[in-house]
Amino acid sequence: MEYIPSKLLSNAVDQFSRLPGIGKKTALRLVLDVIKRDKKTVENFANSIVDLKKNIKSCKICCNLSDEETCLICQNQSRKHSIVCIVENIRDVIAIEQTGTFNGVYHVLGGLISPVDGIGPTDLNIEELKERVMQGNIEELIFALSANMEGETTCFYLSRLFKDKVNKISQIARGVAFGGDLEYTDEVTLARSIEARTVYNA
Amino acid sequence: MEYIPSKLLSNAVDQFSRLPGIGKKTALRLVLDVIKRDKKTVENFANSIVDLKKNIKSCKICCNLSDEETCLICQNQSRKHSIVCIVENIRDVIAIEQTGTFNGVYHVLGGLISPVDGIGPTDLNIEELKERVMQGNIEELIFALSANMEGETTCFYLSRLFKDKVNKISQIARGVAFGGDLEYTDEVTLARSIEARTVYNA
Repeated sequence: MEYIPSKLLSNAVDQFSRLPGIGKKTALRLVLDVIKRDKKTVENFANSIVDLKKNIKSCKICCNLSDEETCLICQNQSRKHSIVCIVENIRDVIAIEQTGTFNGVYHVLGGLISPVDGIGPTDLNIEELKERVMQGNIEELIFALSANMEGETTCFYLSRLFKDKVNKISQIARGVAFGGDLEYTDEVTLARSIEARTVYNA
Repeated sequence: MEYIPSKLLSNAVDQFSRLPGIGKKTALRLVLDVIKRDKKTVENFANSIVDLKKNIKSCKICCNLSDEETCLICQNQSRKHSIVCIVENIRDVIAIEQTGTFNGVYHVLGGLISPVDGIGPTDLNIEELKERVMQGNIEELIFALSANMEGETTCFYLSRLFKDKVNKISQIARGVAFGGDLEYTDEVTLARSIEARTVYNA
């Protein structure tokens, strides 16, 4: 917006509009909201980002974002460290943690293999996973990756890499989502959900 | 989100989710995007806000946000300082500036009279407008306020206050918007647009 009559404001709007999904108009709305607050609150807002950038670490076990050398999940001794769920990023960790059903640990790949985008196995945290597997305490690897081309490619690559080194490799179930209309489910999902049918217990 | 496995991350997400229209999930997406950038960029982002809050001023003539004592628009001597367009906030100033059709100056009220929300004339920048009018150089006041109850109330109040003190008080035209379907235009707008019809020049 060349029409913002203030350099300071225009600069802040530019910074906000670099955030994903935030255009110039939304950025202006956010910035005008921020400057309505008192100085201390604004400083807290700014510091939260700088602190995060300065102090956030990558867990040296699972590569998740962490405040310390190892993350809270890897530190937790009541979890099963022999079951490792492989996910793309921290958002997937949070999503699975929210279900409250998984008691193992994670490994965060930091992406998926995608030849189109030039992302190969060496760009992901696969070396770290190899090391964990080599230490010999892992019984099961669970693939919890997106059900798309990149996810499937990554699953395939990892399964070839680890099939002789762990007892069990599994994948989260694909099927008709809860609340999903059968009629509108795509044929690949529907076909897989019939193949992978489970025993019905009434 | 209690499931974020990092205090630093969770704090930044909290801060972002206080922005208007930003929920926890969006906040997490924004924060994860920010920390992917290099340290300098993150600091620039944080500083842009702190600098803005610390240094932004209210123009002592028109009450618009400004980097200096008076804003760029009030400083501009090629504009007609005798024509004052009264708006609610800086976003309206930007919207009108973007049309490129107005060559006068502005007065930013900082809100609209709204008895329901407990906002009276003393909460707005009306004293400052009185002073400008008293100095006697203003020929026309243009009301460019929202076409709702609060806007109409404010127009009415201001017109009573200034009708004997300036030559001309006008209001931006209300009517069917460009691209607007006549069929779906509400009756108040349609009625007004017929009343306020203009000569058609083919």
